[in-house]
Amino acid sequence: MGALLETINNPEDLQGLSVEQLNQLAEEIREMITHSVSQTGGHLASNLGVVELTIAMHRVFDFKKDRLLWDVGHQCYAHKILTGRKAMFEKLRQEDGLSGFPSPAESIYDVFSVGHAGTSIATALGMALGAQHRGSDEKIVALVGDASIVNGLSFEALNNLGLAKRQLLIILNDNSMAIDVTQGAMAKYLSKVRLSHTYEDIRLTTNRILEHLPLIGKRMEEAVENFKRTLRMAITPSRLFESMNIPYFGPVDGHDIGSLIQLFKAISHLQTPAILHVYTKKGKGYEPAGDNPRKFHSTGPFEIDGNGNSEKKGRSFTLAFGDALVAIGEKNKNVVAITAAMPDGTGLVKFREKFKSRYYDVGIAESMAVDLGAGLAKQGLRPVVCIYSTFLQRSFDQIFQEVSLQNLPVIFCIDRAGVVGDDGPTHHGLLDLGSLRMLPNMVIAAPADEYEMNQALTMAVEGDKPFAIRYPREIVPVIAENTAGYELGKSAVVCQGDSEYVIVTIGPVLSEAIEAANILKQEGLSITVVNGRFAKPIDPAIFDYFEKGKTVIIAEDNSIAGGFGSAIIEQALKAATVQKNRTMNNSIGKAVLLGAPDEHLAPAKRCRQLEWMGLAAQKLVDTIKTLNFQTENVDI
Amino acid sequence: MGALLETINNPEDLQGLSVEQLNQLAEEIREMITHSVSQTGGHLASNLGVVELTIAMHRVFDFKKDRLLWDVGHQCYAHKILTGRKAMFEKLRQEDGLSGFPSPAESIYDVFSVGHAGTSIATALGMALGAQHRGSDEKIVALVGDASIVNGLSFEALNNLGLAKRQLLIILNDNSMAIDVTQGAMAKYLSKVRLSHTYEDIRLTTNRILEHLPLIGKRMEEAVENFKRTLRMAITPSRLFESMNIPYFGPVDGHDIGSLIQLFKAISHLQTPAILHVYTKKGKGYEPAGDNPRKFHSTGPFEIDGNGNSEKKGRSFTLAFGDALVAIGEKNKNVVAITAAMPDGTGLVKFREKFKSRYYDVGIAESMAVDLGAGLAKQGLRPVVCIYSTFLQRSFDQIFQEVSLQNLPVIFCIDRAGVVGDDGPTHHGLLDLGSLRMLPNMVIAAPADEYEMNQALTMAVEGDKPFAIRYPREIVPVIAENTAGYELGKSAVVCQGDSEYVIVTIGPVLSEAIEAANILKQEGLSITVVNGRFAKPIDPAIFDYFEKGKTVIIAEDNSIAGGFGSAIIEQALKAATVQKNRTMNNSIGKAVLLGAPDEHLAPAKRCRQLEWMGLAAQKLVDTIKTLNFQTENVDI
Repeated sequence: MGALLETINNPEDLQGLSVEQLNQLAEEIREMITHSVSQTGGHLASNLGVVELTIAMHRVFDFKKDRLLWDVGHQCYAHKILTGRKAMFEKLRQEDGLSGFPSPAESIYDVFSVGHAGTSIATALGMALGAQHRGSDEKIVALVGDASIVNGLSFEALNNLGLAKRQLLIILNDNSMAIDVTQGAMAKYLSKVRLSHTYEDIRLTTNRILEHLPLIGKRMEEAVENFKRTLRMAITPSRLFESMNIPYFGPVDGHDIGSLIQLFKAISHLQTPAILHVYTKKGKGYEPAGDNPRKFHSTGPFEIDGNGNSEKKGRSFTLAFGDALVAIGEKNKNVVAITAAMPDGTGLVKFREKFKSRYYDVGIAESMAVDLGAGLAKQGLRPVVCIYSTFLQRSFDQIFQEVSLQNLPVIFCIDRAGVVGDDGPTHHGLLDLGSLRMLPNMVIAAPADEYEMNQALTMAVEGDKPFAIRYPREIVPVIAENTAGYELGKSAVVCQGDSEYVIVTIGPVLSEAIEAANILKQEGLSITVVNGRFAKPIDPAIFDYFEKGKTVIIAEDNSIAGGFGSAIIEQALKAATVQKNRTMNNSIGKAVLLGAPDEHLAPAKRCRQLEWMGLAAQKLVDTIKTLNFQTENVDI
Repeated sequence: MGALLETINNPEDLQGLSVEQLNQLAEEIREMITHSVSQTGGHLASNLGVVELTIAMHRVFDFKKDRLLWDVGHQCYAHKILTGRKAMFEKLRQEDGLSGFPSPAESIYDVFSVGHAGTSIATALGMALGAQHRGSDEKIVALVGDASIVNGLSFEALNNLGLAKRQLLIILNDNSMAIDVTQGAMAKYLSKVRLSHTYEDIRLTTNRILEHLPLIGKRMEEAVENFKRTLRMAITPSRLFESMNIPYFGPVDGHDIGSLIQLFKAISHLQTPAILHVYTKKGKGYEPAGDNPRKFHSTGPFEIDGNGNSEKKGRSFTLAFGDALVAIGEKNKNVVAITAAMPDGTGLVKFREKFKSRYYDVGIAESMAVDLGAGLAKQGLRPVVCIYSTFLQRSFDQIFQEVSLQNLPVIFCIDRAGVVGDDGPTHHGLLDLGSLRMLPNMVIAAPADEYEMNQALTMAVEGDKPFAIRYPREIVPVIAENTAGYELGKSAVVCQGDSEYVIVTIGPVLSEAIEAANILKQEGLSITVVNGRFAKPIDPAIFDYFEKGKTVIIAEDNSIAGGFGSAIIEQALKAATVQKNRTMNNSIGKAVLLGAPDEHLAPAKRCRQLEWMGLAAQKLVDTIKTLNFQTENVDI
């Protein structure tokens, strides 16, 4: 750790430092972040980009009282370092360690626990209105990136900014240096602004804003008018934010700590919402890190081949999906793919390379991605909408109305379904089974291995119904026993046992169940393992186990509430109610539901989280042993 | 029916008519709509506003092949009249009748079944890309109102419009004549545009656009440049859409059929997405409808006192909520209310009148409404977010991350929860129990009567947790038996019976269950009725009925999938698994789940829809008789 950084234990320690020293501190923080992330894994480039910005904010604002709202939040490392959490970086993103995202449980300097895009302006506006209501004078600052500002939620908040009749600063952190990858009109607008400015222009803009500082005592209206004149001096190709009646300042250099401090001081006096547009460079200070830069992008020693991360080595579901889609895309020209700014994470890179004209990236706009798919499906195409489970929550209503109600063949490929490990509660995908299975017409498959991934995707593309395929951030298990033919709504018995215990799984939890069966077999207990395969429709064959008086353990990497187990039991009850012979007498038999409990699960390794839910092989063994011991005792 | 309208059976019949005749036709259609709605109920003002627009669209485009996407869709009556559905208006919004919204099941002229805002541009873009992919040349037209265009989904679509390299016309139907009620920056922008134009300006703009018509054969680029020059002639205060790189034309008069036809013909040749901004007058032609204009606003002879509609007379849940909130707001200054453009429908009008500074209308922006609430709650306030159940689906992710994960005391008052009657499948609120109960920290109450509404709201405001209160579009039943004290997570036995049958209800279905109990009692069968009160947390006392071998019928005005019954059974199973005495042996007892099936329920009277779900008193009686007959037979 650098000598200056050693002395900084909270933001107040910044007060005595000169701009030169703050620049030195920035270098030391950058060094610390690079070092930490190389050890523990984590986000690197985004964090290196906002070091000066973070220092300048903490120098001007007092975020014990003032409130700082991060958008997405993966760029908060410098903030955590400055707010007394230096020592915890050894356990970044680990169990009982430091979250990779803002976390109010860690620090009073973190306001919201976030991880999804587009929330900062909306929640900041709420906090500003709250301050207005209470008559308190804390400053509210939202830091939002150019990727997040295109989200519909950001727009809805910008559209309502006029509700605040007080200070509210939105810092637009514009780091899209790679113009070709940005998407949409807003990105084009920002890149036009960017291209029309030289570095000298940017310095000039800063100076002009500062010259027109509103002096305290001047009528605020006048100050705003002055600012608007300043704005007009900037050579913007057109004026998007001004059209929306939002005072806009910039663009300015987001690495010039001295200017940023002056700008923040000036703008913080404005008694109206305002946007400050800053340019930062993602990964700044990272280039000279030696001859092996990839080392510094690493998410740690456990990086796997592919885009998913896991402590194990092997082929990820993400890769398996990506390859399957390319193969299907070659055969079927009607297959098109949609991503919401996640071509890498969702495994679409190969598809994009091969079929550029059949690939759409709509930016961080998950609602839109689904409706785009609905429109394409109406035209007879087979859109494959690739969104992480947690972000698909943004599209719940679109899947309901534009897909389920129309019964359109939109295919949802849902990566990061289940617990996600170190990203923690903002990123778990535990609600997709429960929310999607409520929607009529949906088919929901959860492939347990690569064979099923290929089969499910083929079935989805050849079918004519809404079709969701969900899989975790995990290595694809190789399951030799999983050989049964793949049929819509059919489960498969993978191990046939003779005891009363049956484990029914959905997705790759199957491999844990098989391992559990093998362990128990060695101990003399032979259990049945059923691969449920579909969360909708549920295979009625599963209900027979209840009829036969078996104890059915239903295991899913999903919330228990409303999940796969819940679906089986609802429908088993219905079957028992309608059936003629009435042996079930409207009751289901013995069942144990395993899955995510009614709480937000903390960051940890994914395998640990699976243990917490009782889904790891040994935990399944323990559960059955406990049940068996009880039963034997009762039998005696 | 007017003489001219008599002769119009499909859009092709418009071709021979002169502009004068089309104007005559507009009058006749307006008359028919006014008459129909006065008979059957339905939307009036919005439909009267778009008659000329609809005629002009059908005259220029061939929507058998071209595609017309409606936004929200409640303004499609003239379209339905012109597309062969005149005769069906007698059964507008009735069982087996004509839907009040676009419905592909009715006609090839309806593309999407819609009812939620902001979808038209997004789905139109998808269809344009589909046409691009197929190389087909159908024209795509989206008609979106000024209230819908502020929705985040609209913005996300506008931001991605550049994906289309072909024709795609967005008609912005701007009918906000009452400027003071419009919300947000976009509304201000549009009203500035409006205020800066006289009627003469508007005619001039139309002429200028027409003069600059792109001639076929001219290079398209040149044509677009010409149009942009035209645009600049308009005296717009600033250029919002141009900032987003979207060619914009207007504003023009949306009641001038002749000009509209010329404009559509011209703009339809543009091989690029474009916006045409038209002014229309909501309710046009309605003012002179005699001395009793309220008659023509009527939704039919069944209008009730309040904002909810029902075939019965009485006090609606909407009104009961509105009054309760005013009373609580007087006692607690920290209570603030948020609506997404529905102050009437959600019953907030009285609160707005009394506490103007504590009331926020964010426009049709449900996601934003929730995050605004989260920010306010962070500041110690008690925001009451009032959104219909079906529209709350837009906020699922915000409730997950910004409310549940932070454990913030945001209060959701969810009107139109359950089936909604004549609005049909786009408007049913059947997914709120299932989706909200998956979220940790949530409390979910469903008041059965006004006593419980007051109690639940008080509890929510005095508590410190996320709290959802859901109630249907219904008269509040008066339930004399419902006297037990109201406690968090506690159910109440309302009728104590001695047979094996127990009905557990949530919400006002309770009154049906009591009626059923009374009917059965007269027939010699005494059943127990339990008022569940909370869908989360579930009262463990309910589990005892399983233990005692009772047959538990769980009745909810909500989807069976993942709903209240499902919650009871999951948790009863868990209780049976963990309990020491093992009398349940991990099994639950006899249960029957009643609620919405796995399908989209058609428009009909709400009472009919309750019958379909088996929730009407007589249906509950039938169910229990059937069960009882079977049991007796088995016993024999």
